[in-house]
Amino acid sequence: MGLFSKDIKTMDDLFVHTLRDIYYAEQQIVKALPKMIEKASDPTLKQGFEKHLRETEGHVKRVEQVFEMHGVERKGVRCPAIDGIIEEADDVAGEVDDKQVLDAALIAAAQAVEHYEIARYGTLVEWARRLGRPDCAEVLEKTLAEEKATDKKLTEIAESRVNLQAAE
Amino acid sequence: MGLFSKDIKTMDDLFVHTLRDIYYAEQQIVKALPKMIEKASDPTLKQGFEKHLRETEGHVKRVEQVFEMHGVERKGVRCPAIDGIIEEADDVAGEVDDKQVLDAALIAAAQAVEHYEIARYGTLVEWARRLGRPDCAEVLEKTLAEEKATDKKLTEIAESRVNLQAAE
Repeated sequence: MGLFSKDIKTMDDLFVHTLRDIYYAEQQIVKALPKMIEKASDPTLKQGFEKHLRETEGHVKRVEQVFEMHGVERKGVRCPAIDGIIEEADDVAGEVDDKQVLDAALIAAAQAVEHYEIARYGTLVEWARRLGRPDCAEVLEKTLAEEKATDKKLTEIAESRVNLQAAE
Repeated sequence: MGLFSKDIKTMDDLFVHTLRDIYYAEQQIVKALPKMIEKASDPTLKQGFEKHLRETEGHVKRVEQVFEMHGVERKGVRCPAIDGIIEEADDVAGEVDDKQVLDAALIAAAQAVEHYEIARYGTLVEWARRLGRPDCAEVLEKTLAEEKATDKKLTEIAESRVNLQAAE
């Protein structure tokens, strides 16, 4: 992005920019998840993160598919939002010693990531439709549904196991 | 937060830390919203942001109320997540010239903020309950409901007005 020019002129430019933002974000999440898997103690949580890592690798491929369908160059743009969310997760996790409390902190961090993605994919699906690209919207919607399911699953794990044990 | 010690030892410590994180975040949002109001063109969007600014000032007060109820010092801790989300909003808004496209970008940015808050307040409400503080949970839940309503309202504005005009 140029610092001295207004590079986003149309809705299509904004759509492509946001696609590049989420492409970068998904790649950062792929890098962050193995550390979260390593830190998690609860076996259900660990498995949940492992499953989500495989899903996230699929999300990267889906964004690449949309770049191709839309005929634009496949590239990422730095996304300060996801960088901040991951930095915060690292900071907090580094402050926690107790395993149960750490699991609760990891779930909270993962839910912040999921909600960022839900916001972004929700926007992208809507914009793709308005731009007359229901085919792109359909691909992006698959990922949106998976992010929502992951968020729900994390809430279930938190409510049923981790928080209960940690508050004991 | 100490850099060389593990300062979060219990679920209660984690709850208080996260409360301080959202306290800082709400204050940053109070600072960011006037700029978004100024940039917005669509009158419904402008009014929506103005209403949300007043609500956000109330959210700051509610967090202060929970600090008091829980008997802990009222203070914020830097929240790299919200800093990143706001930085990204500024970056993108700075790249857009067209008023309609800018409105669409502002809505997307505001929804990223809302989703961050929905994740954090959802976590805080759950933790307050587990810690035997349903009174704190009740206060935090009021804000959670308002954040969800704002997110929904932004989707409605986007779908009904702004995106439609911008894609023309």
